[in-house]
Amino acid sequence: MATRRFRADAPELDAFYERLAGADLQPLWLQENLMPLAPPRDAWLHRWPAAEYRELAARSGALVSVERGGDRRVLGLCNPGLGGLPYATPTLWAGVQFLNGGELAPAHRHSPNALRFVLEGRGTWTTVDADPVAMEPGDLVLTPSWAWHSHVNVADEPMLWFDGLDIPLALSLDAVFFEPGPDERPRPGEGRAPGELAFGTSPGLVPNRDRPAAPHSPLVRYPWEATDRALDALLAAEGGAGPADLRFVDPTTGRDVTPTMRCTMMRLVPGTALSHDRVPGSAVRVVFRGSGTVDLQGRREAYGPGDVIAIPSWSECRLEADERTDLFGLSDAPVFEALGFDRPPPAV
Amino acid sequence: MATRRFRADAPELDAFYERLAGADLQPLWLQENLMPLAPPRDAWLHRWPAAEYRELAARSGALVSVERGGDRRVLGLCNPGLGGLPYATPTLWAGVQFLNGGELAPAHRHSPNALRFVLEGRGTWTTVDADPVAMEPGDLVLTPSWAWHSHVNVADEPMLWFDGLDIPLALSLDAVFFEPGPDERPRPGEGRAPGELAFGTSPGLVPNRDRPAAPHSPLVRYPWEATDRALDALLAAEGGAGPADLRFVDPTTGRDVTPTMRCTMMRLVPGTALSHDRVPGSAVRVVFRGSGTVDLQGRREAYGPGDVIAIPSWSECRLEADERTDLFGLSDAPVFEALGFDRPPPAV
Amino acid sequence: MATRRFRADAPELDAFYERLAGADLQPLWLQENLMPLAPPRDAWLHRWPAAEYRELAARSGALVSVERGGDRRVLGLCNPGLGGLPYATPTLWAGVQFLNGGELAPAHRHSPNALRFVLEGRGTWTTVDADPVAMEPGDLVLTPSWAWHSHVNVADEPMLWFDGLDIPLALSLDAVFFEPGPDERPRPGEGRAPGELAFGTSPGLVPNRDRPAAPHSPLVRYPWEATDRALDALLAAEGGAGPADLRFVDPTTGRDVTPTMRCTMMRLVPGTALSHDRVPGSAVRVVFRGSGTVDLQGRREAYGPGDVIAIPSWSECRLEADERTDLFGLSDAPVFEALGFDRPPPAV
Amino acid sequence: MATRRFRADAPELDAFYERLAGADLQPLWLQENLMPLAPPRDAWLHRWPAAEYRELAARSGALVSVERGGDRRVLGLCNPGLGGLPYATPTLWAGVQFLNGGELAPAHRHSPNALRFVLEGRGTWTTVDADPVAMEPGDLVLTPSWAWHSHVNVADEPMLWFDGLDIPLALSLDAVFFEPGPDERPRPGEGRAPGELAFGTSPGLVPNRDRPAAPHSPLVRYPWEATDRALDALLAAEGGAGPADLRFVDPTTGRDVTPTMRCTMMRLVPGTALSHDRVPGSAVRVVFRGSGTVDLQGRREAYGPGDVIAIPSWSECRLEADERTDLFGLSDAPVFEALGFDRPPPAV
Repeated sequence: MATRRFRADAPELDAFYERLAGADLQPLWLQENLMPLAPPRDAWLHRWPAAEYRELAARSGALVSVERGGDRRVLGLCNPGLGGLPYATPTLWAGVQFLNGGELAPAHRHSPNALRFVLEGRGTWTTVDADPVAMEPGDLVLTPSWAWHSHVNVADEPMLWFDGLDIPLALSLDAVFFEPGPDERPRPGEGRAPGELAFGTSPGLVPNRDRPAAPHSPLVRYPWEATDRALDALLAAEGGAGPADLRFVDPTTGRDVTPTMRCTMMRLVPGTALSHDRVPGSAVRVVFRGSGTVDLQGRREAYGPGDVIAIPSWSECRLEADERTDLFGLSDAPVFEALGFDRPPPAV
Repeated sequence: MATRRFRADAPELDAFYERLAGADLQPLWLQENLMPLAPPRDAWLHRWPAAEYRELAARSGALVSVERGGDRRVLGLCNPGLGGLPYATPTLWAGVQFLNGGELAPAHRHSPNALRFVLEGRGTWTTVDADPVAMEPGDLVLTPSWAWHSHVNVADEPMLWFDGLDIPLALSLDAVFFEPGPDERPRPGEGRAPGELAFGTSPGLVPNRDRPAAPHSPLVRYPWEATDRALDALLAAEGGAGPADLRFVDPTTGRDVTPTMRCTMMRLVPGTALSHDRVPGSAVRVVFRGSGTVDLQGRREAYGPGDVIAIPSWSECRLEADERTDLFGLSDAPVFEALGFDRPPPAV
Repeated sequence: MATRRFRADAPELDAFYERLAGADLQPLWLQENLMPLAPPRDAWLHRWPAAEYRELAARSGALVSVERGGDRRVLGLCNPGLGGLPYATPTLWAGVQFLNGGELAPAHRHSPNALRFVLEGRGTWTTVDADPVAMEPGDLVLTPSWAWHSHVNVADEPMLWFDGLDIPLALSLDAVFFEPGPDERPRPGEGRAPGELAFGTSPGLVPNRDRPAAPHSPLVRYPWEATDRALDALLAAEGGAGPADLRFVDPTTGRDVTPTMRCTMMRLVPGTALSHDRVPGSAVRVVFRGSGTVDLQGRREAYGPGDVIAIPSWSECRLEADERTDLFGLSDAPVFEALGFDRPPPAV
Repeated sequence: MATRRFRADAPELDAFYERLAGADLQPLWLQENLMPLAPPRDAWLHRWPAAEYRELAARSGALVSVERGGDRRVLGLCNPGLGGLPYATPTLWAGVQFLNGGELAPAHRHSPNALRFVLEGRGTWTTVDADPVAMEPGDLVLTPSWAWHSHVNVADEPMLWFDGLDIPLALSLDAVFFEPGPDERPRPGEGRAPGELAFGTSPGLVPNRDRPAAPHSPLVRYPWEATDRALDALLAAEGGAGPADLRFVDPTTGRDVTPTMRCTMMRLVPGTALSHDRVPGSAVRVVFRGSGTVDLQGRREAYGPGDVIAIPSWSECRLEADERTDLFGLSDAPVFEALGFDRPPPAV
């Protein structure tokens, strides 16, 4: 197949362009969007209301078996500006996963990094490599690149959680590998997994040995109780007006929990606002608790618990909290920093 | 616009899928290529013969003015497997730039990193920020992210060089910024620019001060004479059978010349072969000198000076050198390493 | 003054050596200990019993005012092998500091890094730069290089703590600077200081901003309650036999709490032993709680709460716990690692 | 042995101090120099004239065999302020080594890092691990920590070089290990060693592989010809007034050639001066070529080729060049930087 994306504008050029196409060449001077003055923001600044996806997720739980779902029953949040691609932003996949009581999402592993932020329910254990890890509302659970993972719901009630992955990034790099796992049903855990005990008990205390070679955090669960406490403490440390803004890090390095995604949790005090300034790089925010109003480039919308907002590169938005609001955040900032694309943007 | 990329297979599901689309949601279980077992290799293992692009580049020099070319007269090498996108691989832009004697490609700057590998001609000066830098065959010249750069050909003869950029990567990240520069004609240089003198004179000797804050190499020209000498020396150091394989690095850090692209130069001895094994990540190779045969997944083709070969992620290829062959290489390896996607691939 | 440390052994050499001395030169061939086959271990493997220093510290509290003590009432633990130098090992200063109820050890700062491990009492606040930090038994409190610090005991009862500093190292480098502070009496704090709130509340959660430029941890207090909990958790994670061995780290980097000293806390289960193998580098261990027997190169001694043991470079020792034993540890391991002197020792 | 370094000043204290001594304790308040306001500068700012040591070194070549010299015939430069210790500064050993034609200084290895800066003669090969490396005037040759090394002079004439080691530092850390090597006479080399060919041919070009695990530079010889050329180039790059100040670095990391010692080469233009400001950390400078005047805290002395100057921590000195002057420099700056003792000194 030859490249044919352009049209000539003179007979002589017609013939020339035809020859170029035959040689798998394209004239740069006919490319219009190769070097925009700033990120084009095809992706929309967009909100998915929880009320809508929650009901549809429950419906999918009734209509579609997990097996049918390629091992996972997930609804992908599709940014309306991306031409039908199932991505929340050009680098980030976001979805909501629904697992009925008693169901199993069987083991597999993949090079994309994944993380789960629990929205509703309890009783599911995510087995990461060998260790079963509990999932409760507000918990962040990591299933890093190439770690085996499965989810088993041992409760009677369904569970719903937010999934964040770097699938669009990994796909654009041709970096995706996948391997299905064995069919065995993993056993649920009891209490905290070894990694939680060793790395997740007290701040600034880690096992006294050389750090593991893995590029991801040895801590795979950040329980809500600890996050909630840290939000309160940071608010107090900074005088109470907020917002308190925490970053989830690998306790052995202080680096982001995965090489591709930064995770944060922010607490807004009622009556205050959060301004997300224009930066290179995109983000997704999940309202864990609270309500207020979000300004999506002029459209003002009410937000409430569970709502998900996609913020494309070089976009601005603003949240005004009526109730105390806790926001889980996910962004591709580590990618921009590692590749040098994070520098203060020019005066565009 | 709502997402509509799927089709249901039962009346009940029909309605359900319709509702999902209306809510900007997509069922993961209908996504077929989201998690391939290995990189799908849509991109082809492909060769662009120099004979073909050289003649077309010269023709473009007669037909199209630089100004018309959006400031640059470049033919982009379009990988036939990428559906018409003007990219050599999913992360790398490759092109050939043609500048007639006396012509000017005026100043601009952009967040994508760029590099030039000179194929033919001499007499062009690339001004990088304030400093004019010479360009001669075999030279590698960097114009890193957000550095102002222009090219002026003060000779009578045209010049032809290879352009490598991380445009596809930067676009997929929504990380592209661009700024046109002033119209002034930059002055050609005399001898070596200050950065070449300070950082490019002797190995292992750098100015005795803290390293500059810039994320790219302070050395922007790697002259062919030095590369040629280093290839001979490395061959001698390793016993002569080769291939000698050199990496261009920032002399103040030993890191790749840009955060996104690794540059290498390899010398094959006649009668020997180079096997490019399957790795995550893509590459482009430019034959600077020499000839032989390349095996492109079963298609055996003769190669010669100036030919460009795209090697997608997870592809293999093999070159057999009839004549001593010098290969310039460009890859996205630093991206894979920084993001943790470079690990030994699984047994796929 | 000329060097005169050698004696000649022949008339001709006599004269020659005399001339060398006059020129401030010394023949390497007369130096006997310049290159020992292994660290000479002048320093002793030595134990200071708490019963002894505790009584003497209390006595100093009665006899000597703080002001008289150069601002600090400290008894330095002097390794008997170091010829009278007041050092625990060739790189580490160790001492016990005694502060009566109501007393103030006024503010000063110095380039050596200091840390406090609290043995007995409560009611003292250490002000680190602006922030008052509580001190309770088992707490580790850092007063890093060049941070202002004072100690004020607002209780009625005296306090006793262990001081660890890198004074011998800093002195040997000619790196010591000191500055006395103002005479003002600092106010005691209330609850936790801002740094404790922001960095010390939950593992793996730090303020979402670029890390501070300081080379030391932003967390300056590691309270015993958190350490105790982490020891139990690590024992559980590793199966219960122990020893549990924790490292105190900067939560923003995972690195040691100071660039020169590693701090650890170890818990031994009754009936188990700890073998300290020969490594390059020296250490000091403080028994916080527990009792048992320590083998000091053949001398077996009973140990109990508060005892301090110095372990010189390339020495071995062994502790056998009769009661559950918690050991605070201090070592110069970060220095050896940073300077490349930590590598697996040769077969000496 | 108990510590007895202090005297009491009252009967009651007399008895108390005696008890402290018996318990291997010392009162901090009687330590006078433990925390000086600034480095005490016991070490002198001192110059060793080449005329003097050169003649004495030649005389040692006649009087003392290499074997007798503990395998090395070295005259150590003893700083007159250090009480007879054979050190140039508190962290740096400096010496001049003399090897007659035909002589061998046999193989050994040690944990201290060593480097050689060649003053006079040619014909000696230093074998570093397996590889023979040439030594010519102006060359810097590294024999890093724990690398086997021997020196064999295959010429008829003697050779004289400067030795720099971190012996005082390593001794103060109890970090010295030493191992004598086999008695075999190493063969001289031919041309450049493999490491020189692979890493020392062209700036910014290194073998395209992961960097070796060793903490020292894979390049062990920095030939004078390359250094001379780089000094000229840096002078030109910076406008010619100088001084040109180069740092020798590991070409694979840009870091100092050893973890403990920084090596530099500086070129002063006639009629200009070099001011060495007060910094924490000590240095040694060797005049390779040139002459002028040095101000040693008020003493003005003429300097000439081969002279060695010790500059203690927190000292100032000033050189005024009559002739173009090339100065080799050695300092403990990497130690201060790694340990955080290099920060801008306080206003003392």
